[in-house]
Amino acid sequence: MATVEFTPTPEQYVWTFGGAEPVMEVAPGTVLKLWTEDAFAGRVTSSADKPSEVLNPKELNPQTGPFYVTGAEPGDTLALHVVSLEPARDWAASTTIPLFGALTGTDRTAGLQPPLPELTWIYQIDRAAGQATFVAHETDFTMTMPLAPMLGTVGVAPALREVRTTLVPDYFGGNMDTPELRAGTTVYLGVNVDGALFSVGDGHYRQGEGETCGTALEGAMNVTIVVDLIKGGAPAWPRLEHDDALLTVGSARPLEDAWRCSQVEMVRWLTELYGLGPMDAYQVCSQLCQSPLANVVDVNYSAVTKIAKSLLPQSDPYAGTHQRLRAVTVG
Amino acid sequence: MATVEFTPTPEQYVWTFGGAEPVMEVAPGTVLKLWTEDAFAGRVTSSADKPSEVLNPKELNPQTGPFYVTGAEPGDTLALHVVSLEPARDWAASTTIPLFGALTGTDRTAGLQPPLPELTWIYQIDRAAGQATFVAHETDFTMTMPLAPMLGTVGVAPALREVRTTLVPDYFGGNMDTPELRAGTTVYLGVNVDGALFSVGDGHYRQGEGETCGTALEGAMNVTIVVDLIKGGAPAWPRLEHDDALLTVGSARPLEDAWRCSQVEMVRWLTELYGLGPMDAYQVCSQLCQSPLANVVDVNYSAVTKIAKSLLPQSDPYAGTHQRLRAVTVG
Amino acid sequence: MATVEFTPTPEQYVWTFGGAEPVMEVAPGTVLKLWTEDAFAGRVTSSADKPSEVLNPKELNPQTGPFYVTGAEPGDTLALHVVSLEPARDWAASTTIPLFGALTGTDRTAGLQPPLPELTWIYQIDRAAGQATFVAHETDFTMTMPLAPMLGTVGVAPALREVRTTLVPDYFGGNMDTPELRAGTTVYLGVNVDGALFSVGDGHYRQGEGETCGTALEGAMNVTIVVDLIKGGAPAWPRLEHDDALLTVGSARPLEDAWRCSQVEMVRWLTELYGLGPMDAYQVCSQLCQSPLANVVDVNYSAVTKIAKSLLPQSDPYAGTHQRLRAVTVG
Amino acid sequence: MATVEFTPTPEQYVWTFGGAEPVMEVAPGTVLKLWTEDAFAGRVTSSADKPSEVLNPKELNPQTGPFYVTGAEPGDTLALHVVSLEPARDWAASTTIPLFGALTGTDRTAGLQPPLPELTWIYQIDRAAGQATFVAHETDFTMTMPLAPMLGTVGVAPALREVRTTLVPDYFGGNMDTPELRAGTTVYLGVNVDGALFSVGDGHYRQGEGETCGTALEGAMNVTIVVDLIKGGAPAWPRLEHDDALLTVGSARPLEDAWRCSQVEMVRWLTELYGLGPMDAYQVCSQLCQSPLANVVDVNYSAVTKIAKSLLPQSDPYAGTHQRLRAVTVG
Repeated sequence: MATVEFTPTPEQYVWTFGGAEPVMEVAPGTVLKLWTEDAFAGRVTSSADKPSEVLNPKELNPQTGPFYVTGAEPGDTLALHVVSLEPARDWAASTTIPLFGALTGTDRTAGLQPPLPELTWIYQIDRAAGQATFVAHETDFTMTMPLAPMLGTVGVAPALREVRTTLVPDYFGGNMDTPELRAGTTVYLGVNVDGALFSVGDGHYRQGEGETCGTALEGAMNVTIVVDLIKGGAPAWPRLEHDDALLTVGSARPLEDAWRCSQVEMVRWLTELYGLGPMDAYQVCSQLCQSPLANVVDVNYSAVTKIAKSLLPQSDPYAGTHQRLRAVTVG
Repeated sequence: MATVEFTPTPEQYVWTFGGAEPVMEVAPGTVLKLWTEDAFAGRVTSSADKPSEVLNPKELNPQTGPFYVTGAEPGDTLALHVVSLEPARDWAASTTIPLFGALTGTDRTAGLQPPLPELTWIYQIDRAAGQATFVAHETDFTMTMPLAPMLGTVGVAPALREVRTTLVPDYFGGNMDTPELRAGTTVYLGVNVDGALFSVGDGHYRQGEGETCGTALEGAMNVTIVVDLIKGGAPAWPRLEHDDALLTVGSARPLEDAWRCSQVEMVRWLTELYGLGPMDAYQVCSQLCQSPLANVVDVNYSAVTKIAKSLLPQSDPYAGTHQRLRAVTVG
Repeated sequence: MATVEFTPTPEQYVWTFGGAEPVMEVAPGTVLKLWTEDAFAGRVTSSADKPSEVLNPKELNPQTGPFYVTGAEPGDTLALHVVSLEPARDWAASTTIPLFGALTGTDRTAGLQPPLPELTWIYQIDRAAGQATFVAHETDFTMTMPLAPMLGTVGVAPALREVRTTLVPDYFGGNMDTPELRAGTTVYLGVNVDGALFSVGDGHYRQGEGETCGTALEGAMNVTIVVDLIKGGAPAWPRLEHDDALLTVGSARPLEDAWRCSQVEMVRWLTELYGLGPMDAYQVCSQLCQSPLANVVDVNYSAVTKIAKSLLPQSDPYAGTHQRLRAVTVG
Repeated sequence: MATVEFTPTPEQYVWTFGGAEPVMEVAPGTVLKLWTEDAFAGRVTSSADKPSEVLNPKELNPQTGPFYVTGAEPGDTLALHVVSLEPARDWAASTTIPLFGALTGTDRTAGLQPPLPELTWIYQIDRAAGQATFVAHETDFTMTMPLAPMLGTVGVAPALREVRTTLVPDYFGGNMDTPELRAGTTVYLGVNVDGALFSVGDGHYRQGEGETCGTALEGAMNVTIVVDLIKGGAPAWPRLEHDDALLTVGSARPLEDAWRCSQVEMVRWLTELYGLGPMDAYQVCSQLCQSPLANVVDVNYSAVTKIAKSLLPQSDPYAGTHQRLRAVTVG
C-alpha cells in the first residue's frame, strides 16, 4: 500500500468543506499519516486564556486536506478507515466560549441573559497511562479521566456548489463530533464532487456525548487513515462501521430531526443488507438500536443510530470493505 | 422486610398520574411484588390486529398503583429500587399506530400525508433462552433478539393539582421509556403530593433507544420493587442509579430541551456529590457523559444523561440508598 | 336572553382545566357578565414588586368558572362569543419572572446562565383615552400605547381524564395568549366532557404577538360573553371567527408544530366550507393565510393561522353562529 | 441618479450567495431595473408538469446578480429600497414538491410516509385587475385572489468564506420568503465581504405567511430597486423598513429560534433608536410587536418581528435612509 505523510503548515490549514484546492491526489488504497491541529488553531494554551481574546473567529477548526481521491465521482461512496488516532501533545484544552454551548443561549437560541463565565481548562495528558487530568477552577478538586481519542470532523465537499465552514456537520459529514469516530471506525460518505475532496481535523482526546459545553479535550492529533472508494451507492447520510456495530449519523435542528435522519438512514441500510421491507426494517430498528447523541452545540446537531452486529444476522456491508481496510498493515 | 403482592383487576387499572385513589398504603422499606398489564391493556393479541380497531384510546398504558407511601411529603425523594422484571407472558406485541411514532407525522407534527400501514408484530418469547423471535410481514425474514426487560413507565402524582395521562413523561417520571430502567436500577423521584402516589407499568421485554416506531416488545410483567423514602432533597428531574452509573432523565420537546433538562440535572448532581462549582461540573459532565435517548415518540420526548461510576471519584449518592436497597433479600 | 352575572371570590378562583366543580350551569344562549382577576392573582401591584417574592407559584392564572353548559357532550362544539372586554382597573402590571419568557433560558430550555433581572412595570391606564403609559426602569423614557383588550385564557376541560393547570394552552384552548381573542371574536372549542366545563381568565389590556417577556399588560377584566352550543362537529383545535376573518390556533412545541396544527386545522376547515379536496385546500391556505404568533413562552407555544373573509368566497361557518351571536343584545 | 437595466441570460443566473463573480459594479445611489426568473428557473409551465420530472435540483431559485457595491466593506450596512415589483408574466405557477413543504415529512423531518401527490397549479394573472385565478385540481372550484407581489430572496455573500445555495435564508438575508419584502420596503443587510455582492430573485405574485406548501405564486418579476450604502452599523440580522413599520427577520430552526433572533434584533434596534436599556426594550417589544411568520419550509425557517411606527415615538432609523430612498424618482 502506498503510504503518504502530510503535516500542513498553518498556511495550509483549510477552513471550509468545498472551496479549497486539494493538497494532493490520493489513489484508493492509500494510507495517509496526517497531523491535525486542534479546533482552536492552537491559540488556546493556558488556563488563563479567554477564548474571546485569543481565538480568531475566522480561523476555527482547521482541517488537514482536502484530498482529491482518484476516480471519485458524484454518487460514489468514499470509505475512510481510521487506523489510529494518537494525541500529538501532552496537554489538551477545553473552554467555555461566550454564547456557545448547550446550556446557554446562543446566536440562534438568542436571548438577553449575560453569557456564562469564560474559562479554559488545560488538561495534562499522560499518554503512557492513557489519562488526562482535570483541574477545577472553582474549587481545588482534581480528577483523572481516561483518554478516548476521536476525530470531531471528517467530511467531503458539499453538493449544490456550496462551501461550508468546517464548524458545520451535515449530510457531507463535517463537524459531527461523535465519539464513535475513533480508531477502528470506517466512515462511508457520499461523494458530491469529483475527487470527493475530503479533509479531517478536530481531534478530541476525549469527549462526552453531546459535547455539552461546546468543546472537548481539544488537541493536535496524529491520524492514520486508509482511503478507499466504492463506485456508486452513496448514502444520504454518513454511515460508520466498527468491528462490532453499524452506525448512521444525522445532523439537523431541532435534535429530533438529526435523529430522524439517522434513523431513516439505518432503516434504509437494513433494507439493503437483509432485503427487508421498510416497515419490517422500521420495526427491527425500533427494537435493536442504540441512540447515542454526538453534539448538541454545532450549527446542526448530530445524533447517531447504532446497532450492535451481535444483534443482527450476518451481513456483508459494502462487500466487506471494513474488514478489508482494518486488515491493512501500516508500515 | 414487609412484602406485599398485588395484581390489579382490569377495573383497578389506572390511566393517570394523579387523580386516582391509592390502592394501598405502603411503608418505606416495603417489597412490592406486582403484575403489570401491557400498554395496549392486553387488547393486541394477534399479528392480524389493527391497533385502530382493537385499541381503546381512553384505555392505554394501564398502571399498577397508585401506592401511598407512608410519610412522603412534597419536597421529599421517593426511591424505588427495581429488584426484578420478569416477562409474564410467552409472547409480546409491537405495532405501528396511525400517526404515532417517530418516522411519521403525528397529531402535533401535523401534516397531510397518509399514515403508514398499520401492522402488528407478535414476538414469541423463549423465557428460558431469554430470546424473542421477530417474524417479518413483508418478506419471510425471521430473527431472534435477546430479551432486555425494562419498565416504560414509573411515576408519581404531579404538582399544581394536575392529572396527567400515563402516556406522558415529565418531571414526575411517567412514560419515560428508557431501557435504563431495568432490574438493578434505583429511581429517585421528587414527591409532589402527600403519599407520593406512585405507580408502575408499561413493561417492555425489549426496546431500542428512542422507541422509534412508538411501541416496544410490549408485554405483561412481574415486577418486584423495594420502596424507600428520603426526607427532602427532591430532584427537579428523575435520577436513576445503577451499580455502574448515575443517570438523569429529562422530558420535553423539542428533543434538545429534554436533553438539556437531563444535563442540568446531572450538573446539579455533580455539584452536590463533589462540591464542584457549576462551571467545573459543566466541564466534567461535558467530557464524561453518555447521552442515550429514551423515547422520541411520546407527549414529551425523553433523553438520558449517564456517567459511569468508574469514571467518577468515589461518592455516596443519597447516603448509600442504592447499595442498601439492592442488598434487600426478597423472599 | 338570560343574563347571568358572576364575580368569583378569591376562594372561587380555579387553577385548572378539568378537576374543578362547576360554579353554575348555563343554558346555551346565556349571556355571562363576568369579572376575571389578573394572571398574577392580583399579587403584583407595585413597580418595586419582585415576582419571585410576591407570586404564589401554585396560584397563577386564576380562572372564572368553570361553567357547565346544558346539553354539552363530548364531540360537540362550544361556541363562546366575546361581546366586550373592559379593563376593570386603571393600572396593569407586566413583569419579568426568573427563567420564564422567550429571550431567556427556562425550566425546559434549561441552562446555567443567571436569570435576567426581575422587574415589574406598572402601566397607568386611561380608559377614556384608551391608553396605557409605559415608564422605563433603566432610563427616564416614557411612552403611551393604545389599549387592545384580549383574553389570554379560554378553555374547556381536557379529555383522557386529564386536569391541566391554567398555564397550559392545548387542543382544549386554555392559555393561548393570542391578541385575536378580543371583543367581537367567537371561539369554537371541541367538547371533551359532559357540560364542557369552560372557564375564562387572564385579561390583557394589551399584548404583542408572542408575549415575548412572558407577561402582557395584565389586569382584571370585565368580560361579557354569549354561550352557545353546536351539536357535534368538534374541531381538533380551537377555531376563532371575527367579522373579517377565520382563524385556527395550534399549541405545541417546537413552534413549527404549533403552527402545523393550526394549518392542518385550517385546511380541514376549508375542505368543510368549500368542499375542496385536501391538496387544493393546502394550496389555497398556502397563498391566502396570515400567520401571527400568539405565545412563545407558555407550556406549549401557540400559533395562529388566519384568513381574511374578504379573500374567501362567501361561506356560512357553523350555520351562521358568529353572525347570530354578535347580534345578541346585551342588556 | 444613475439607472442601470439588467436582464440576465439563463447562463448568467446565479445559484449561490457568495462564490459567484459580480455581473457589474454599482455605486451607492444607483437605480437598478432588473428582471428575475421564477424559482423554478422557468421549468414549470403547465398544470400537468410534475416537479420531480421537470425541475433540475441543481438549478433552483436563480438570482439576478450579484452586484458589487462600490465602497462596501465588511461591517457596513447595505440598504436596498424596493421601488416597484411588477409581474413579468400573465401566469404564475405553484407546486407541491415531493417531501418539501410544511405539512409533509422532508429530508430533515425525515420519515417513512409516502410523499403527497405532486401537483402544479397554474394561475392566470390579470395584471390590470391585480388578480390571480386559482383553479382546483380535485373539484371544479375556482376563485380569484388579489396580487401582492414580493421578493422571496434578497441577500448578500455570507461571511466565513461560505457559499450558500440561494434556497437558504440566514443572517445574510437570502431566501427569507416574507411577504413584507414588497414595493416600498427598504432592506438593511450587514455586509460580510468587499462589495457586499448582493443579488435578488424569487418573485412571488402572492404568498401566504409561512409558504405552507413550499411554493408561492412563482413568477418572473420586473424589479426596480435603489442601492445605498451606510458605513458601519451592520445589523446581526436583516432589518426592513416600511413607511409604516420597522421589521426584523430571523432565520433558523426550530421556528422559535428564528423568531428569537428577530426579537433580539428588534430589542437591539429599539435600544439604538431610543436609548432604552435592554430590559425596557424587551418590555416595549413584548407589548407592541406583531410576529408574522415568513417561511416554515426552507433550509432555515424565517420569522418576522414588526412594530408599527404609529405605536412608537418619532425616530430616525439610519438617518432617514428609507425616507430618502423612497423619494428617489425613477425615470
